[in-house]
Amino acid sequence: MTATLAEQAAMARALELAATPGVPHGPNPRVGCVLLAADGREVAEGFHRGAGSPHAEVDALRNAGGDARGATAVVTLEPCNHTSPRSGPCAEALLAAGVRRVVFAQADTNPVARGGAATLAAAGVEIEGGLLSDEARALNRAWTFAVEHGRPFVTWKFATTLDGRSAAADGTSRWVSSPAARRDTHRLRSECDVMMVGTGTVVVDDPVLTVRDELDQPLPRQPLRVVVGERELPADRRVLDDAAETLHLRTRDPHEVLARLAERDRQHVFLEGGPTLAAAFLGADLVDEVVAYVAPMLLGDGLSAVGSLGVDTIAAAHHLHVDDVTVLRGHSLEAAEDTNVRLTMTPRRA
Amino acid sequence: MTATLAEQAAMARALELAATPGVPHGPNPRVGCVLLAADGREVAEGFHRGAGSPHAEVDALRNAGGDARGATAVVTLEPCNHTSPRSGPCAEALLAAGVRRVVFAQADTNPVARGGAATLAAAGVEIEGGLLSDEARALNRAWTFAVEHGRPFVTWKFATTLDGRSAAADGTSRWVSSPAARRDTHRLRSECDVMMVGTGTVVVDDPVLTVRDELDQPLPRQPLRVVVGERELPADRRVLDDAAETLHLRTRDPHEVLARLAERDRQHVFLEGGPTLAAAFLGADLVDEVVAYVAPMLLGDGLSAVGSLGVDTIAAAHHLHVDDVTVLRGHSLEAAEDTNVRLTMTPRRA
Repeated sequence: MTATLAEQAAMARALELAATPGVPHGPNPRVGCVLLAADGREVAEGFHRGAGSPHAEVDALRNAGGDARGATAVVTLEPCNHTSPRSGPCAEALLAAGVRRVVFAQADTNPVARGGAATLAAAGVEIEGGLLSDEARALNRAWTFAVEHGRPFVTWKFATTLDGRSAAADGTSRWVSSPAARRDTHRLRSECDVMMVGTGTVVVDDPVLTVRDELDQPLPRQPLRVVVGERELPADRRVLDDAAETLHLRTRDPHEVLARLAERDRQHVFLEGGPTLAAAFLGADLVDEVVAYVAPMLLGDGLSAVGSLGVDTIAAAHHLHVDDVTVLRGHSLEAAEDTNVRLTMTPRRA
Repeated sequence: MTATLAEQAAMARALELAATPGVPHGPNPRVGCVLLAADGREVAEGFHRGAGSPHAEVDALRNAGGDARGATAVVTLEPCNHTSPRSGPCAEALLAAGVRRVVFAQADTNPVARGGAATLAAAGVEIEGGLLSDEARALNRAWTFAVEHGRPFVTWKFATTLDGRSAAADGTSRWVSSPAARRDTHRLRSECDVMMVGTGTVVVDDPVLTVRDELDQPLPRQPLRVVVGERELPADRRVLDDAAETLHLRTRDPHEVLARLAERDRQHVFLEGGPTLAAAFLGADLVDEVVAYVAPMLLGDGLSAVGSLGVDTIAAAHHLHVDDVTVLRGHSLEAAEDTNVRLTMTPRRA
């Protein structure tokens, strides 16, 4: 048996619920759930609002009350099978509520939570998995990657002039990236749970490394700030303020960095480090996505946006697949030259 | 009185005729003409097929025969007023044919040809100018620029990796640009009447500098090949073969280069020189358009795609306006990585 049309429509709705604006990215996956009566009519909806709040299935069951008996649960992720400090297994909650059938999108391969479908099936519940699973995986791209790879997904972002410079010969660089590109960067940062730079960037540029809104105010939820490298940090650096948590990892090994962040359940690193750190991650094949903001500006000389990568011949170049190209134009009140071109790319792995 | 609906439609058609594929760009403007009877019905069409062939008005008059008497001529460029070695003035031809009214798009400001509208008006012909003139100017962008500025329009094209390199540290560069980008470059070259490089490029890279089709065969009409610089050229260089005419200008002054080309009635330079020549033109504010092919590839080290521009601080950067961004993807038979991003830009003049 496959999913009915009503279940397909309900799954599309569950995906919408999961993506409700304001629901944080990480550490928990974003999940939506719709309960359908036997005749396909919607009984209740629910979604997960982030760590500490009920799972989507529990939220929907609460909203349904007694109407959950005999219903079909349509949920974007396989119901979990584990008891966390904050909630019991969703599989058991569905059983207790008398749900007759469960349709899910993405299978849960998380070692501590997986097995919900098997538990439900053993208890006599009809199970249908894989409906719109690509969409569900995309919704929780970094979470899915982290579960499957045992390390965070790494997005490397850099800004460059058209001729590959990040600053002029005298070091001046404000601003290579346009206001529209900086706003766009904050949006991408807000989807990550780690902002990473190298010690050199902290010493030289003193970034605050917070995520800010359109009015330049910090968002309530801030990613972990991670500084990588063996140098000591001057105590007056802004990254050490209390605007967000900061972790100084005294290593230069990208593998070790990601292992340490995986221990902390971190899933998506936004790497904005200078050329040295980026080159280390790229060289270790630990960059999963590249976001480049290209400014239509020529400097001729100046600091290179990308540092030495140990590439000495064209055959050894790092090739990227272009996933998206977007022209970011400025507001009407900004200078017309405030246009950047954003390229979103995936490294081609051998 | 303004243009009638029939005349507006006829002008759109005349613009299409002017842009007939295969009609060369330069030295003559591309022009289309539609003759309308008094009731708005189309009597005949014509267009200019390039130097040595009749002007669009004369072509249309020939196609109309006696039906031209009392007609309205709708033409994309103000009829010319001068006698060239190959044709008499169109203004007189229109008078002789008994045309009653002339509607044109772009005014002709070419000193040797202008004044046709005045001649016609003085002879009692109704004149209406400026209908779709922006479209007509765009159609002959380089010709219009050359007439108005007394020098050729300069398009500077370069290919770069995402990090501003044109070749790896060992000099290898085949290919930074993708097959799709190279095909696109030949299309742009075919719209120019000069291909320009510096002596250094000829000595080092030995380009043939011809325009070739999709099958890599040279087109029948080739732009003038111009090599700029004081160095002698080795006699075995491919640019000296008989595939096209070649001019070696022994100067490093961009103003002088363009003056020499203006004398030869050249209107559109496609500058593909190395960094030195491009920097000289950019520094002299003699680049009118920049076409950059960005390869989604990182080299880290290597040759810079753009040479020193004498810019030492960010405030002195050359800013460009982004007119168009196009993703050029490869054919299905080519490698999936064969994607380049083309940015077409206009320098911002102070």
